[in-house]
Order: sequence, then C-alpha cells, then structure tokens
Amino acid sequence: MKRIYLDYAATTPTHPEVARAMLPYLGDVFGNPSAIYCYGQEARSALEQARAQVAGLIGARSEEIIFTSGGTEADNLALIGVAYAHKNRGNHIITTAIEHHAIIETARFLEKRGFEVTYLGVDGQGLVDPDDVRRAIIDRTILISVMQANNEIGTIQPLAEIGGIAREAGICFHSDAVQAVGHIPVDVGELGVDLLSMSAHKFYGPKGVGALYLRKGTRLEALMYGGGQERNWRSGTENTPGIIGLGRAVELARQEMAQEAGQLTRLRDRLIQDTLQRISHSRLNGHPKKRLPNNVNISFDFVEGESLVLNLDLKGICASTGSACSSSSLEPSHVLLALGLPRPQAHGSLRFTLGKWTTESDIDRVLEVLPPIVARLRAMSPLLKNRS
Amino acid sequence: MKRIYLDYAATTPTHPEVARAMLPYLGDVFGNPSAIYCYGQEARSALEQARAQVAGLIGARSEEIIFTSGGTEADNLALIGVAYAHKNRGNHIITTAIEHHAIIETARFLEKRGFEVTYLGVDGQGLVDPDDVRRAIIDRTILISVMQANNEIGTIQPLAEIGGIAREAGICFHSDAVQAVGHIPVDVGELGVDLLSMSAHKFYGPKGVGALYLRKGTRLEALMYGGGQERNWRSGTENTPGIIGLGRAVELARQEMAQEAGQLTRLRDRLIQDTLQRISHSRLNGHPKKRLPNNVNISFDFVEGESLVLNLDLKGICASTGSACSSSSLEPSHVLLALGLPRPQAHGSLRFTLGKWTTESDIDRVLEVLPPIVARLRAMSPLLKNRS
Repeated sequence: MKRIYLDYAATTPTHPEVARAMLPYLGDVFGNPSAIYCYGQEARSALEQARAQVAGLIGARSEEIIFTSGGTEADNLALIGVAYAHKNRGNHIITTAIEHHAIIETARFLEKRGFEVTYLGVDGQGLVDPDDVRRAIIDRTILISVMQANNEIGTIQPLAEIGGIAREAGICFHSDAVQAVGHIPVDVGELGVDLLSMSAHKFYGPKGVGALYLRKGTRLEALMYGGGQERNWRSGTENTPGIIGLGRAVELARQEMAQEAGQLTRLRDRLIQDTLQRISHSRLNGHPKKRLPNNVNISFDFVEGESLVLNLDLKGICASTGSACSSSSLEPSHVLLALGLPRPQAHGSLRFTLGKWTTESDIDRVLEVLPPIVARLRAMSPLLKNRS
Repeated sequence: MKRIYLDYAATTPTHPEVARAMLPYLGDVFGNPSAIYCYGQEARSALEQARAQVAGLIGARSEEIIFTSGGTEADNLALIGVAYAHKNRGNHIITTAIEHHAIIETARFLEKRGFEVTYLGVDGQGLVDPDDVRRAIIDRTILISVMQANNEIGTIQPLAEIGGIAREAGICFHSDAVQAVGHIPVDVGELGVDLLSMSAHKFYGPKGVGALYLRKGTRLEALMYGGGQERNWRSGTENTPGIIGLGRAVELARQEMAQEAGQLTRLRDRLIQDTLQRISHSRLNGHPKKRLPNNVNISFDFVEGESLVLNLDLKGICASTGSACSSSSLEPSHVLLALGLPRPQAHGSLRFTLGKWTTESDIDRVLEVLPPIVARLRAMSPLLKNRS
C-alpha cells in the first residue's frame, strides 16, 4: 500500500540533500568545535557557516543566533531566560491561549515560580487582536510572546503590529515561529521581534536541533550551564551534524519556499473546498486566508478525530487530530476550545498538513477515502444516535 | 600528512556502524514518535529499543532512562531538577572541586538561586576521600554529585563507597559518568547512584544526544516544558536519529569495551612511561592506576600546554591541554589547581586521550615528535631563562 504522509506539521522527512550534507559530520569531520587543532577548527568553521545561513534567512546577524536542541528548548530558553533576566523590572508575561505546549507549559512553570501570566484569547478564526495586547500591558510586564503561525489551525498572527506595540512599550517580544520558518517569509526586523524560535525538523531538517534568535542587547539568562558554548547562552558540545543539517535546510528553504508555498496553497484550498463540499456538517478551523500554505484543519460533527486518524491510517494516510505532542492525550485541543468550539466539535477535528512531496493525486486519494470513513463512523456514532 | 587523533576525551569519531544505524532515521523512518499512525509507531518502537539498550548497559530499567541533548543537559537536569524538587527538605549540595564545567557552573548558578554548595577538595592524584563526603553532610544536604572519572586527568573515583554513604544518609546521589560510560563498566546498582549522566559522542555515538539515568522514585523537576515527552521529564520532539545512534554505540561498547580497555591501557602506560623517561622535568597528573584506560595527562615544566598543542598540531597530532570546553580559555585548569599544582605547572600540562583507532605506531610517532618540541620550547622559554 502506498503511504500518503499528510502530517508535515508534526515533522517533515529530512530532505535527502540535508542528510547528504550531514554525512561528513558523522564521518571524517568529527572534531569538537571548541578544540584549537585542525579538526576542531574545521568543525568550528562549518558551524559558523550554518549560523550565517540561519541568520540570513530571517534577516538577523550571525551573532544573534543561538543553536539549541530544538524548538522546545528555544521556547524554554526564551521565556525562562527573559523572565529571570528581567525579574527586577517586573514579573508579568503576556502570551496567548493558543500557543504550543512548549510555551503554555513553560508559562505555567513560571507561574509556579512567582511570575504572573496573561493568556490572551483569540477570535473565532484564531487571530490575536493587537489591541488586546496593548490593553494587557501593565507596569510590571517584561515579556510578550505570540506565536507566528499556529501549529494546529495554521492561523498567521499580525506579529508586526504586536511588535510595534511591544517596542513602543519597551517590552521584550518573543515569537515561537517553529511552524513559520522555512514555510513563509520571516524577517525579524519587519516583525519587530527580539527573540524568535525555530526548529529544523519542521522544514526538512533533522530532529534534535533548532535555534533561538536573540536581538543584540536583549538580556537573557541561560537555561543550561557548562563549557560556555554559544557565547555562554547555551553550554554543551555543539551538535555539529544537526547544525549543518539545519543550515542546509535553511538554504533549501531560501531557494524553494516561495514556489512551494504557491503550490501548497493551491492543493490546500482544493482539499478544503472539496472536503467541505462533499462532507456535510463539516467546517474549517482557522482563518481561511491568513493561514499557513500547508494547513487544513476541519471539524466533522458526530465523529471523533482520533477515529478518523486511525481509519485513515488503515488506508495508508497519515493525518493528525492536532498537535503531535498531544496525540496520545484524550483532552480536546486547547486551541480549538480557545476558538470557541464546543467540546464535541473540538473532539471531531482532523488536521492535514501538506508538504514538499504532496501531489495532486494524494489529495484525490484523501477526497476519495475520507467521505466514506466519515459516513461509516457517523452511522455508528452514539453522538448522532442521541441526536436523532 | 597523516593525522593522529589523540583527543578522544573531547569527542570521538562517530563509529561507522553508528552512522549506518542512524541513516534510515534521516531517511524513510522519519515519523514523529508521538504520532499514533504507522510512521509514528515505527519511530516510537525504535526509540524504545534504544532505551532498553542504554538501560541494559548500566544495569537500569528502561523506564529509568531519560534521553537528553547531551551530557551537559543531563548534568543540568540532574542538579537543577533535584535541587528544586527537594528544596523543601534543604538547600545544601555537595560536589567536588574537579567536576566538569557542566557541574561546576550549574552549581554556581544554583548558589545564585539560594542553594549552598560545598566543593570537596581532592588529594594529589585527584581522588575524593569518601570520609570527606561523610563529614560534609549536614541536615540540609539534599544532593551529592561526584563524577565517576575525571575528563582531564582520568582519575576514577570510589563511587560505590560514596554511594553507600549517600544511601545511609538518605541523600540523592548523582554521578557525571560522561567520561566513563562506554569505556569502563558502569552499574548503577553497584555504584549506588540515583542519577547518572552520559553522552553519546564520548563513546563513538553522535553529538547532540545523551541520557540521564533516574532511579525509580527519585523526585526531579523538569528543565524544559512542552509536549510532555520522556514521561514529562524532558519535553521536545525526540532526536530519533541521535537516540538510535546512542543505542547502537551502547551495543558496540558492550561488545568491544573490555578488549579495547585492555589494549588502550597497554598503549597508555607505554606512552606515559616513555614520555616521563625521555623528557626531564615531566610528571604524570592523576592516579597511575585508578585511571581511565585511555587517559594520559603530563605536566612539563617551563613550557605552556597551549604551545605544545599548537606545535603538535603542526605535526599532525591532535591533543589538548585539558577540557575541550576551556581550550580557548587562558585560565589554568581548575582540576590541576585542585590537585595542588602551582600555576606554571598547571599551565604546562598536556592531555592525550586514546581511542578505538589508536595504534602502536601513533604512540611511536608521539614519542618521536614530542621530545624535540618540548626541548625547543624550553630553549625559548622565559620561564627557564628566569630560572637559570
């Protein structure tokens, strides 16, 4: 059975060229970048090239890039690091109710440590209102963190506006751009962010590596201590192969992103329109236009998203109910609840995220397979029986 | 010029079989282990196999292994995590003056957060006296952390004795075993440790991955928050290729460690004896017997270790002055100072660390090249001139 992978937001396959770029660093070029002899310097120089590549993609300077073990570490470093570095100025943090768990759970941790967090609500399409951000700012506010694009519903936030508000108020502004980098243009200058998180495996790079952009002059406390790598922001021997892979993924994104986004938007819109047309009692979650090019998130009344995922898997189609991290949880998505969906509908959502290797015929296949699955599940559904 | 790598303690080349084992996870097996469909489950099952391999090597149970991004993260998670999880019981931590920076700097960070740290001294050969540990324990002591083997001088500590003392006192016992795992037998039961750190790239695995052993029932606070991976101890999408590489490195260690240790001990002792014999005013640092099989650390009077490293590099030989992390620092080694070496001698130390691919003729070459380098540097040395 041919498998159709439509969960690119959970993780992407590593691009063959990325894997190829990494290989020498799992082979002959193995030196510790901190060593002063030739092998060390070889590794160091490759590392600095990757740093320049990453910086180049987002309009930053090399020295503003801190390599991490992934998006989660970048988010934790940003939130905990800014909170503690600014704790003499205040203890209030503003974020949103639809952030990724790496932000929400870190914010909850900070609440236990005496920080106060405002979780802003969103409208029915998942948009944060910049005026809400402005109104939430108090004297003690030290950090605003708003994701660039939501991982479940794909909604893209008005970051530049929020960035302007943060700047005006002199407050640090962080964005979890894990779902955005490599997929849509991200420019730290235009967005007005002081910190920005990214993760390689969300755009065809390897798992286990990411980066945090830290605007020069922004105060931050480290999360890990040791050998003082990454200019003391992040100790630990550098993951050279992973970092080189991230650099290569960035280069590929730079070359292919625009064309890929166009193609994915077309496939995305076809999948959305035809699904909504062919399956009654279904509706799109998230903003129809201010949306990641690859994200489709649809709620189906009277079915469980989990059952849809399992039944699609039997047909060789990989999809998700929302965030990969919570796929084994039985709680409905906090994002869909924040949009105002009632719990049964939040439970009945299905996410397809498309990618570089998604074809027209993959979409055909989903449109062929999904309607009968939904019909069958609805026929068995106690939810529907109770209703009728 | 043939290069001779003798800095295996800084990092090891990735074993070709490790790289080979990782490749599928940079290719077809790319699923997010948290996903419930087939690709996810494939990755999950490989991950759990690696976990069982790691547990098996150190006499632990699978559920006691937490994958991290490396030794530094494992050390930070252990110290910060135990400190905060036990802070209602006390705020005192015992460690040693010769720990790796990942312990020392983390302890210093905890001091800033209101914890109190005792840094135990060592004898002239780098050994911690278990009685010193016993005497340092006070009512408020919540954690003892003693490395298994020192990264600079190779001295192996009497961990089992210290473990007995910790257990008797009901205090958590952690060991940074980053230099030991994969090189000498490590059994968490015999050593009596509650937590133990390891790093893949120190024994032919990839950079960017490590693990923390956490004895069942030991209370620990997480260092990073998010999707709740690693049973909530360590959030973040798992570095599947890296973890598979770690698992393969563990298997290779299990098969090859004993034989390799025998061979390296022989080469090590030859290099030590012949160097001390051929070069006057030189002396071995660390314990002559209770010592990692691959570690040679020698101080040469009237020369700078840094100059030795650079001159050896010109001859194609990679060595180090001590820890890779501090190679670019001008401070003498805190480990050598703790042994009681005067600063000039601490500055004149050179570390060779041998490994799987070190040959008899590599040692011949060092013994041929090193004496004239030392002689030449001494001839130019202001230290020597001032003395004569």
